[in-house]
Amino acid sequence: MSRIAYVNGQYVPHSQGSVHIEDRGYQFADGVYEVFAVHGGKLIGEQGHLDRLTHSLGELQIKWPMGKRSLMVVVRQVVQRNHVKNGLVYLQITRGVARRDHPFPAECQSALVITARKMPPLDKAALSKGVGVITIPDIRWQRKDIKSIALLPNCLGKQQARSVGAYEAWMYNEKDEITEGTSANAWIVTKSGELVTRQVGQSILNGITRLAVIEAARASGLAFSERAFSRQEAAEAKEAFVTSSTSHVKAVTRIDGKPVGNGHVGELTANLLDLYVDFIESKGGPVVTNRWN
Amino acid sequence: MSRIAYVNGQYVPHSQGSVHIEDRGYQFADGVYEVFAVHGGKLIGEQGHLDRLTHSLGELQIKWPMGKRSLMVVVRQVVQRNHVKNGLVYLQITRGVARRDHPFPAECQSALVITARKMPPLDKAALSKGVGVITIPDIRWQRKDIKSIALLPNCLGKQQARSVGAYEAWMYNEKDEITEGTSANAWIVTKSGELVTRQVGQSILNGITRLAVIEAARASGLAFSERAFSRQEAAEAKEAFVTSSTSHVKAVTRIDGKPVGNGHVGELTANLLDLYVDFIESKGGPVVTNRWN
Repeated sequence: MSRIAYVNGQYVPHSQGSVHIEDRGYQFADGVYEVFAVHGGKLIGEQGHLDRLTHSLGELQIKWPMGKRSLMVVVRQVVQRNHVKNGLVYLQITRGVARRDHPFPAECQSALVITARKMPPLDKAALSKGVGVITIPDIRWQRKDIKSIALLPNCLGKQQARSVGAYEAWMYNEKDEITEGTSANAWIVTKSGELVTRQVGQSILNGITRLAVIEAARASGLAFSERAFSRQEAAEAKEAFVTSSTSHVKAVTRIDGKPVGNGHVGELTANLLDLYVDFIESKGGPVVTNRWN
Repeated sequence: MSRIAYVNGQYVPHSQGSVHIEDRGYQFADGVYEVFAVHGGKLIGEQGHLDRLTHSLGELQIKWPMGKRSLMVVVRQVVQRNHVKNGLVYLQITRGVARRDHPFPAECQSALVITARKMPPLDKAALSKGVGVITIPDIRWQRKDIKSIALLPNCLGKQQARSVGAYEAWMYNEKDEITEGTSANAWIVTKSGELVTRQVGQSILNGITRLAVIEAARASGLAFSERAFSRQEAAEAKEAFVTSSTSHVKAVTRIDGKPVGNGHVGELTANLLDLYVDFIESKGGPVVTNRWN
């Protein structure tokens, strides 16, 4: 069955979905996006994604292409029309089409594209196979809290990881602190057993899965810290993992080619994956969703 | 007469030019561009643009969509079909269409879009009306030598300038040095009379007009320095101007609301505009075009 995309007011075969060459998303990366996980037929973290989208659009002064409720109707339509039980929804909003010129155009109708894709159901066994990450300098712009489509540095970083057989690249700033992965948040369990992920701010994107894991940890009484951690701490960590809407809670067992802890998936990591799955199945996603920078 | 665009192998009415929603340019800003000035029916700085494009594509490992000669045939076709005597050509190359995933796709045909636009002929009188610039923090990524389409921060900066009635925003780094404008290189004549523009490197884009002005200055025996200059030096400058393919040599007479020098267009600036126009009319653009970072 062919995929269906929603493109500026129309449902079209995915292969025919197109936008104008002067869409500012194409010429200027002047737009934002969200990726929703679909798990067992349900959208995960809907409110979180909408809240973060509100933040991104607000910071860039891009107008909503339609009201939030209507938007979610379209999102559900795209899920249904693509028969997605497990997979993801990709939603992109740009400032729209205008004659190429850097300043915001006076009048512009925001562009909206929504696609969906089936993926295998969340598989705890597969997620519990550890992956490797490398560390690379964080060369991105200074507003990582905005989920913009200006993802070129993220692509370069991810490609660098894949070219050496690693799953992801963790980026470090000028203070040698790990900020995050190119498309996932970074977590470690330090050698003293502290569960740590970087605090929100303009240097990371606050992931919806990150928020869900934090709430799941909190609900089960697990201690954790939101603070900066260094490459050195990561190199000496007992456990490590990444979180994202597509990676869920994925164990990291090698950093820069060296084993994390004993080189096997950590106990706390495995525990958090269980807690996360239970949490999203019962709550549908994070409840506290208003801290974006 | 309607504008014609070249889009992935076809000449189409500009209004109908479109690209797929999964073009990596649209989803990831995974592409590069060039803007050629057309002056009196001639392309300016052709070799410079091609050399810089070679650098940008090479750094991103994006394949040429066709050979350089063929590309220039298409560029000239677009100029002709749009009857452009004075104006500009916009050329964009992206990594192409692929299912959304950060790493580079294994197989991908680069996408190519070329458009052209008429503009009023270069008008020395108009260019000699001074404009204002503001200074703002440089929040961009760390590879400004690559002419990528990830221009969101440039758009935000330009918009910030325009919202206070300024023509351009000059960006300063963490050392309080001016790097460049959001779409033009920045130049000053210091209070001691030194003509200065920042040296090339990963913190600026080496403009083709910048190169032409440097050569024109050199040819006429004018001393100049390529070095970092501070916001303070800019604030105390005698003269200031910006260079770009669309701004040519444009006098700056206000920085952050304060007059530059006596508030009138500087002598050296006016002289350089004359030299630049003579230079491109005789040479067609800069000759030395191989220093990109």
